[in-house]
Amino acid sequence: MSDPHLPSPDLIPDRAIQPHAFATVDESWFEYPVRVNPHHTDYGGIVWHGSYLTWMEEARVECLRSIGVEFSDLVAMGCDLPVVEVGIRYHRSLLMGEMAIVQTRINDIEGVRIHWDYRIQSPPPAAADAVPITYVTARVTLVAVDRERGKILRRLPPNVEDALTKIARLHRRP
Amino acid sequence: MSDPHLPSPDLIPDRAIQPHAFATVDESWFEYPVRVNPHHTDYGGIVWHGSYLTWMEEARVECLRSIGVEFSDLVAMGCDLPVVEVGIRYHRSLLMGEMAIVQTRINDIEGVRIHWDYRIQSPPPAAADAVPITYVTARVTLVAVDRERGKILRRLPPNVEDALTKIARLHRRP
Amino acid sequence: MSDPHLPSPDLIPDRAIQPHAFATVDESWFEYPVRVNPHHTDYGGIVWHGSYLTWMEEARVECLRSIGVEFSDLVAMGCDLPVVEVGIRYHRSLLMGEMAIVQTRINDIEGVRIHWDYRIQSPPPAAADAVPITYVTARVTLVAVDRERGKILRRLPPNVEDALTKIARLHRRP
Amino acid sequence: MSDPHLPSPDLIPDRAIQPHAFATVDESWFEYPVRVNPHHTDYGGIVWHGSYLTWMEEARVECLRSIGVEFSDLVAMGCDLPVVEVGIRYHRSLLMGEMAIVQTRINDIEGVRIHWDYRIQSPPPAAADAVPITYVTARVTLVAVDRERGKILRRLPPNVEDALTKIARLHRRP
Repeated sequence: MSDPHLPSPDLIPDRAIQPHAFATVDESWFEYPVRVNPHHTDYGGIVWHGSYLTWMEEARVECLRSIGVEFSDLVAMGCDLPVVEVGIRYHRSLLMGEMAIVQTRINDIEGVRIHWDYRIQSPPPAAADAVPITYVTARVTLVAVDRERGKILRRLPPNVEDALTKIARLHRRP
Repeated sequence: MSDPHLPSPDLIPDRAIQPHAFATVDESWFEYPVRVNPHHTDYGGIVWHGSYLTWMEEARVECLRSIGVEFSDLVAMGCDLPVVEVGIRYHRSLLMGEMAIVQTRINDIEGVRIHWDYRIQSPPPAAADAVPITYVTARVTLVAVDRERGKILRRLPPNVEDALTKIARLHRRP
Repeated sequence: MSDPHLPSPDLIPDRAIQPHAFATVDESWFEYPVRVNPHHTDYGGIVWHGSYLTWMEEARVECLRSIGVEFSDLVAMGCDLPVVEVGIRYHRSLLMGEMAIVQTRINDIEGVRIHWDYRIQSPPPAAADAVPITYVTARVTLVAVDRERGKILRRLPPNVEDALTKIARLHRRP
Repeated sequence: MSDPHLPSPDLIPDRAIQPHAFATVDESWFEYPVRVNPHHTDYGGIVWHGSYLTWMEEARVECLRSIGVEFSDLVAMGCDLPVVEVGIRYHRSLLMGEMAIVQTRINDIEGVRIHWDYRIQSPPPAAADAVPITYVTARVTLVAVDRERGKILRRLPPNVEDALTKIARLHRRP
């Protein structure tokens, strides 16, 4: 049976992480802490690969809430933001009981398409010179849709655009 | 790490199954086969206890479909059938890769409340005198709701009542 | 499309809640706050009935953690606590974006069987005389299993028994 | 509330599908049929974006089974195949009750990394000249891991390599 305390393999060599290479002095992320519960795990005692999508969605909704926008209000007003693309890399496995920080920010707003970047890391290490473990890096793209007409919007509703611009200013990429 | 081939414990002694004691000569169930995939499992290499609810829902929808009723049509017509009560016993664990048969039938229709019985078993054994393993027994109660008004219906819509009566006749309890 | 702001029906009349009737002056619960995210919902814009099991599991694990017991440590030491029975009633639906408090406590320890009670409620209302909405009431029974031998334990390991007794003392039923 | 019969928007313009442009005369896919059940949906009455990962995993495991390889046997023998990368595009939404065909095949085997391509489409249309709807296209990369040592394998175990080569020959890309 699975021992949730065994080390998990480094699934992607460090050099493969380079293209994402987020860290710079100025960068800033919205942070959402999560904890691995039994229902997140699979037979390997690690987080099932699809469970990360629930955490990334929660972090996105919470990031909107942090600047005063309720996602359910947007939906009730007729503007939905479905996911149209996900790219996700699993660098290292999270074990049952472990904590992690889901970091997110808006990378770019391209018309009605919103690109969010993600990094899921271990909590800040105690030692000043230690670096956190990166478990997952990802990009998720949403598109603004008119719920009634079932069509992609031509442009973002002003309140949505304001909110997203505010987030992009608060949590800057390098 | 978990060995998905290890025997799983008998979680509830046989005598505890007695109160459900379904089997008789005349009984009949609607049967829906399932297979344990990685996403159904947890750290123990067995099906996570909540995954069974997805299978029971699928079996219910498929049972309606077997007599020509599409659940999504009911919803589109304004009649929803939310779950209002679940009682479920886990007798033995299902391991990754194993197959099982979800058996269901209507136990009773009480006004707008519909009681479904469930039994999740191993596939029929090859030996004539062998008995299948019972993994789960359950009862799920639905209630008919008017989606627009957000209220419980006073009585079942005639087409829903006809469909359920037909199912109750096809898959009889002892 | 679903309007997540519509009122949801009262699925079970108030008198049906009576048998659970938890509230007394002395009672006490462990409380775990949750928020309805898109992935918890179904086509009705409400929480899918199985999603509540994830919250109840999280509350249970967090309750153990609150007294210093890591569930993953128990598992690593060879003691698993699988769910063997769930009884759950859905009184009222939770809508996307809403918050709720998952309340739990140990009702009884019967040998190696641990019975947890649950109540999922709206956050405490502002008005002193207002009562919170009850969404769900439930009981979940766990049993202590030896992971290596795949058998139910004859008695609780002393550290598990101590932890559970401590929880039962902290969060008392009436 | 959501009407599951409304048309869903075309989320990504057709030209954006071009880069994947799979179809040629010789191509061949392993096919796995799925049906949208309530638990797959979200508040929009459509499949929640993470649910597709469960279907893609099931199709992968079933494809292995189709050539006689049980995924749970691989795991029991100590070889796990965790997902290390997913790229997924959502072209059009699937509604509750709808059927779809998950098509998969191996695009490439790069050492111990296995790249699977996916296309989720509507069932073959009745009219000879009609083309099916494409809902999702994706690529999923697995890596072979030694479960005991928690390390990526240097090379695929011979039986795994044989099985994957067989799949790659059976279900050819153009």
